[in-house]
Amino acid sequence: MGTSVKICIIGAGSAQFSAGIVRDLCVNPGLAGSHVVLMDIDERRLEFVLQLAERLSAELQANVSFSKTTDRQKALKDADFVLNTAQVGGHQWSEDQRKLGEKHGYYRGTKLHNFPQMHLFLDVARDIERICPNAWLIQSANPVFEGCSLMHRETKLNILGLCHGHYGYLEIANVLGLEPQYVTAKTQGFNHWIWLTDFRYKGEDAYPLLDEWIQTKAEAYWAKADFEFWDNQMSRAAIHLYQMFGLMPIGDTPRTCENLGVGWWYHTDLTEKQRWYGSLGGFDSELGWQKYLDRLSDKVDDIERAVTDASLKVTDIFPPVQSKEQIVPIINSLVNNVEGIYQVNIPNRGGIVKGFPENLVVECQGVVNGSGIRGVSQEPLPAKLVAGTMNPRWSQAECMIEAMRLGDYHLLLSCLLMDQRTRSLTQAEGYLREWFADPRNEQLAKVFRIHP
Amino acid sequence: MGTSVKICIIGAGSAQFSAGIVRDLCVNPGLAGSHVVLMDIDERRLEFVLQLAERLSAELQANVSFSKTTDRQKALKDADFVLNTAQVGGHQWSEDQRKLGEKHGYYRGTKLHNFPQMHLFLDVARDIERICPNAWLIQSANPVFEGCSLMHRETKLNILGLCHGHYGYLEIANVLGLEPQYVTAKTQGFNHWIWLTDFRYKGEDAYPLLDEWIQTKAEAYWAKADFEFWDNQMSRAAIHLYQMFGLMPIGDTPRTCENLGVGWWYHTDLTEKQRWYGSLGGFDSELGWQKYLDRLSDKVDDIERAVTDASLKVTDIFPPVQSKEQIVPIINSLVNNVEGIYQVNIPNRGGIVKGFPENLVVECQGVVNGSGIRGVSQEPLPAKLVAGTMNPRWSQAECMIEAMRLGDYHLLLSCLLMDQRTRSLTQAEGYLREWFADPRNEQLAKVFRIHP
Repeated sequence: MGTSVKICIIGAGSAQFSAGIVRDLCVNPGLAGSHVVLMDIDERRLEFVLQLAERLSAELQANVSFSKTTDRQKALKDADFVLNTAQVGGHQWSEDQRKLGEKHGYYRGTKLHNFPQMHLFLDVARDIERICPNAWLIQSANPVFEGCSLMHRETKLNILGLCHGHYGYLEIANVLGLEPQYVTAKTQGFNHWIWLTDFRYKGEDAYPLLDEWIQTKAEAYWAKADFEFWDNQMSRAAIHLYQMFGLMPIGDTPRTCENLGVGWWYHTDLTEKQRWYGSLGGFDSELGWQKYLDRLSDKVDDIERAVTDASLKVTDIFPPVQSKEQIVPIINSLVNNVEGIYQVNIPNRGGIVKGFPENLVVECQGVVNGSGIRGVSQEPLPAKLVAGTMNPRWSQAECMIEAMRLGDYHLLLSCLLMDQRTRSLTQAEGYLREWFADPRNEQLAKVFRIHP
Repeated sequence: MGTSVKICIIGAGSAQFSAGIVRDLCVNPGLAGSHVVLMDIDERRLEFVLQLAERLSAELQANVSFSKTTDRQKALKDADFVLNTAQVGGHQWSEDQRKLGEKHGYYRGTKLHNFPQMHLFLDVARDIERICPNAWLIQSANPVFEGCSLMHRETKLNILGLCHGHYGYLEIANVLGLEPQYVTAKTQGFNHWIWLTDFRYKGEDAYPLLDEWIQTKAEAYWAKADFEFWDNQMSRAAIHLYQMFGLMPIGDTPRTCENLGVGWWYHTDLTEKQRWYGSLGGFDSELGWQKYLDRLSDKVDDIERAVTDASLKVTDIFPPVQSKEQIVPIINSLVNNVEGIYQVNIPNRGGIVKGFPENLVVECQGVVNGSGIRGVSQEPLPAKLVAGTMNPRWSQAECMIEAMRLGDYHLLLSCLLMDQRTRSLTQAEGYLREWFADPRNEQLAKVFRIHP
């Protein structure tokens, strides 16, 4: 018999995300009888995802039920778990903000788009605190680092941020030709800013294998024609960061350095991006990002076909095995006291990542069981890495978190003034003025007391 | 009867500094019988300063004796207090480094010149640890913040950093037309990065008086023709920083923001400097700095005349009253247990400035008496100020301190990459290469394992 829980997905219109969760839930007998509330403001996509969920569940003969709503507060009623995957305004708003950034001199845009996101996060978190205060909030939409820290400071919720980036060590193992079952890894830091503190192959330190690869094979790897269309983990930039600071940056870390104070120099223009991330200039270049959007769109088309064509099976796209997504296994660990170790983003209580405030959400390993989540503390990160990468990243995050928490225009402006591309106060102020004037930022402008 | 102490001045060739200390010592009966060792590597200037000191002492009929040496280790023998005021390579090396910075795209140079300074500081500190480990090291040469933090991390010495900047509140009082004897002020932060946390006139909060001045009189002040040839404390930049972050920046703070992550936007070129600091563009512009050097040179000429012309009196230039310089009064407080409150830079033990590491040297009020120096803790600085100014400044200082402590090239490079004017990795690396190739950096290049 399973333990039935009520899971609410905010931003459920993302077919791939929602179907992944539903599939994981369907193949997890421990959670049989559970109910999923799909919530999104896009009715068309919501209806589609509901059909998808029901098809998947039927194909898998699972005991999971579904409902949908566009009303967030209704959705939260009696929820045990709330997954927040919502992207404010979707890809369109992201791209429009990026374009505005470029107009004001910021190639590929700035981190301003984090503010509408964090504004929504706070709204959701406050609703949860009122409607289902004992629920776990599982945050997967970005910015996980700043957003979770902000919500932790402003509410009493149980907050857990999750991300896939930490699996990047497997890509290193793959390129080095190591058998993955013998590879172990530990990482810690902040989300999208994690470092490989321990890397072993068959129990032995595997860093020397990486060093040898850099010496003997890296140039050939970077030169080869069938280079992955985006490459972060084994890019020239990742290796250069390793050589600068002494530990490998994992997952999103080597790409996130973009205009975050450390690593901006890999991203000054497309040519520089191509030099450091291969022919497409990495995931975040105009070329890499377009590929990503195309791929996403192809995937959505595939899903749509599978749902609408009765002759196709949804399980061909979502095979009936637990994915690498940690969400459902963690829920199972929590409600059924099945202890497991996961990669989590949780408040830094007791100084899990040493040298940073307790009210910051850090990324680390976490032991999850019926009593909750306990972060696993490691040795302090090396002094060099802390001074060169962790402090600068933390300092920028603090400015962003506090700008949103206080609704303070000058801190928001400071976030921009810290961007390496900003050339003058006038530039930053002009950009902010136009950004706030967009009707989609109307609520945000009120928070920051901007009166156009 | 006074308590005789042995005071060693490193870099004693600075006539103005040394004579100021000697004068203060001569007028302080509590330290009668003391001996001052003047140490410098410039024999000519050293001889001159010795004559100056003896003239002053004779005119004041003081019981203070002097000796000179170019041998630092001899100078330190049995010292009770070591004053470090040395500037490596003097103004010439500073100007040459600045020129090199400008060649590589950094208007008015960068903070690289802090490294030769910190390298010397460490040498001196290690000598003291060996030769006179119980002495107090009083650091007045810059960078006081990074340098004292570095020495504190690397030695067990009693370290005290001193600076005049905190008196800046008197300039505010003066411009506001307040009678100085009724004005009190508290500041805290890091050296050259302190903020006016408490400002009172006749016991009442005086910030409203400042706000009124800004509303009604500031524009006229900034526009007036007889504007001070450099102005930091009441400059447009200082007021703008106050408006951004909520507290007044004091003393060197509104000028030091130059290329330190916060405030770079006031310093992009001479025109911008003039807009924010008046017609000469402030103390650090090419115009303001030349005035400063000229003034210094005039002062030295005056002193030289007074020493060499028997018909003149040195006490006309250094009148026989205790100056505002805290060094001698603090020595008196320490050795004669005369309790006083001073503005000090000391290790942040117990978190005097809250939210920053204990191994950082912070600026605060300190109670000084026969037992030593106890920092006075204040309320935490406002969250906005911390996020917008203190964290970024701290993060940059950490990178500089740790770069020097570890002798790490990549952290040194990171300090440059954090400079807002850096446009590419190539630019920063090229600049560093040429800087290290200067013969005056030969020892430093070894520390950083640079092999040209």
